[in-house]
Amino acid sequence: MPSFTVFKGHESGLPKKHTITKPDELTGDNVLVKVTASGLCGTGTPPLPNMVLGHEGVGIVKRLGPNTRHLQVGDRVAWGYETDSCGHCLECLQGTETFCPERALYGASNLDQGSFASHGIWREAFLHVVPASLTDAEAAPLQCGGATMFSALQGVKPSDTVGILGVGGLGHLAIQFAAKMGCRVVVLSGSERKREEAMKLGAHEFVAMKDAKELQVGAKLNRLLVTAAVPPDWSLLLPVLAARSAIYPLSVAMGNFEIPYLSLILQGITVVGSLVATRSVHREMLEFAALHQIKPIVETYPMTEEGIAEAMEKLDKGQVYYRAVLVPQ
Amino acid sequence: MPSFTVFKGHESGLPKKHTITKPDELTGDNVLVKVTASGLCGTGTPPLPNMVLGHEGVGIVKRLGPNTRHLQVGDRVAWGYETDSCGHCLECLQGTETFCPERALYGASNLDQGSFASHGIWREAFLHVVPASLTDAEAAPLQCGGATMFSALQGVKPSDTVGILGVGGLGHLAIQFAAKMGCRVVVLSGSERKREEAMKLGAHEFVAMKDAKELQVGAKLNRLLVTAAVPPDWSLLLPVLAARSAIYPLSVAMGNFEIPYLSLILQGITVVGSLVATRSVHREMLEFAALHQIKPIVETYPMTEEGIAEAMEKLDKGQVYYRAVLVPQ
Repeated sequence: MPSFTVFKGHESGLPKKHTITKPDELTGDNVLVKVTASGLCGTGTPPLPNMVLGHEGVGIVKRLGPNTRHLQVGDRVAWGYETDSCGHCLECLQGTETFCPERALYGASNLDQGSFASHGIWREAFLHVVPASLTDAEAAPLQCGGATMFSALQGVKPSDTVGILGVGGLGHLAIQFAAKMGCRVVVLSGSERKREEAMKLGAHEFVAMKDAKELQVGAKLNRLLVTAAVPPDWSLLLPVLAARSAIYPLSVAMGNFEIPYLSLILQGITVVGSLVATRSVHREMLEFAALHQIKPIVETYPMTEEGIAEAMEKLDKGQVYYRAVLVPQ
Repeated sequence: MPSFTVFKGHESGLPKKHTITKPDELTGDNVLVKVTASGLCGTGTPPLPNMVLGHEGVGIVKRLGPNTRHLQVGDRVAWGYETDSCGHCLECLQGTETFCPERALYGASNLDQGSFASHGIWREAFLHVVPASLTDAEAAPLQCGGATMFSALQGVKPSDTVGILGVGGLGHLAIQFAAKMGCRVVVLSGSERKREEAMKLGAHEFVAMKDAKELQVGAKLNRLLVTAAVPPDWSLLLPVLAARSAIYPLSVAMGNFEIPYLSLILQGITVVGSLVATRSVHREMLEFAALHQIKPIVETYPMTEEGIAEAMEKLDKGQVYYRAVLVPQ
């Protein structure tokens, strides 16, 4: 009976260490993975009490269930927000299993496991092989943050101008992906503070919005990825959006998404609700990141109650530069 | 010097008859059209004072400018919301001239002409030949209402389920188009009152929303065309929207478009700001309508100050069944 260390959310807000046990025998295409790194993602905070935390996992395959077909013991694998789907519905058959009615998403299913753990048992079908050029710590934040940005850039044309609103854990990945796709990348940030870094990451233009009455851009934006947590000031942004542009609100928030009705229609704007990547997009993302040396900038913390609490507190205060990764001790 | 009768908006709210004169010689690809019918469209009311009204025109070609190439005197033509664009920008070159920065849209350009008139001078490039199987009065409401619905159905799959919210001047056309495209058509209306008519127009299901706690549909909606003027109750509608569905808000309104943020993301919903049809879509619409005998249900009114005022008042009160058409006396 293997026993794992896991870290659960707690009503105090501070994560708690637990030990869980799982049956000896693996069933179906389940795979035992020993965790080597886990990202800390904003969509996972604040966590529900009594669920195991973490959905950006990287690890090594330790044992294989009887119906596994592709992985080998010793393979380096990773998983993200979705860890199961039915395989039979139209969404699954169309390769959009992230919308399967029986999908297993972080926070709603598999609450007894997560990537803040020593081990996990996950379906082979939802594990992705990590390209060799990425370290464990680099690969971890790609599993949700990176995959979500890459997914929101699907269908973009290399000749498009892409606006990235917010230079944080998500934005700093989106800049790199969009730039390597050939797009003109316009970064929109509050202050001038992150200009140099944004340009280094591949941005072609940087626009500080604070106190601006009007924004100046070299080309209007065909797509806008909103990675900032606060709702954007549309009166400032709409004039720099191209006709037929698409807005991707990517930071999960409660309440309503609001946008001026007439602008939506007169500019032919589309607002796209975009969830995490499907598996096919996820795998393309990993290959693309490996080919183009797209890597998150990470800070590592020990995967202990104290280390997790510290990382969460910093993330909450906007002090993580740019993505926190927990490393088992 | 030809002189036309035109009807302008007036601050009293009642349209006023005027006579305008135009130069004798037609320039460029301009065409003199004698109006035979004009639709009355909700997006044109309330009209601005001192502009000529109407953007659903049908008429007969009377004279041709020196650079016309395709039309002949005697041809039956029609025009809609857009009557000019630059022809050189990327939008024009991509066939999306409705987003040309120099586009001439009703209410913003060509304020001295309209379809509430005896004649008009319009560019050949923005006139559409009317198929023989449509009468003048039937063709008129297709020029904006019909074209806008057909445009909002672009890209739909015949196997999709399409929801039409509202059975009025727009909705009764959308039902016919979607049904003839092969889609399962679910009509959502306030009361039961329009059930029979909606089914006759081609709907497969009819759902009365008033007092409903929960909606029952045979299949979740892949696309929802919102043709009603009041913002929908999303708590009622979101559960019947399919994953990755698209919402088209089509009745022009002021203020913000609002939709719950989390549903947008978790259901992967797209909100599409859709303007009038491009010329290519407009022409496809006319051919499709002719082939499938798609026709608006119209009430005709005399194109006089009194007739226009009466039609506008009825439209305003929701008493037009389903589309008003003005006929020159």
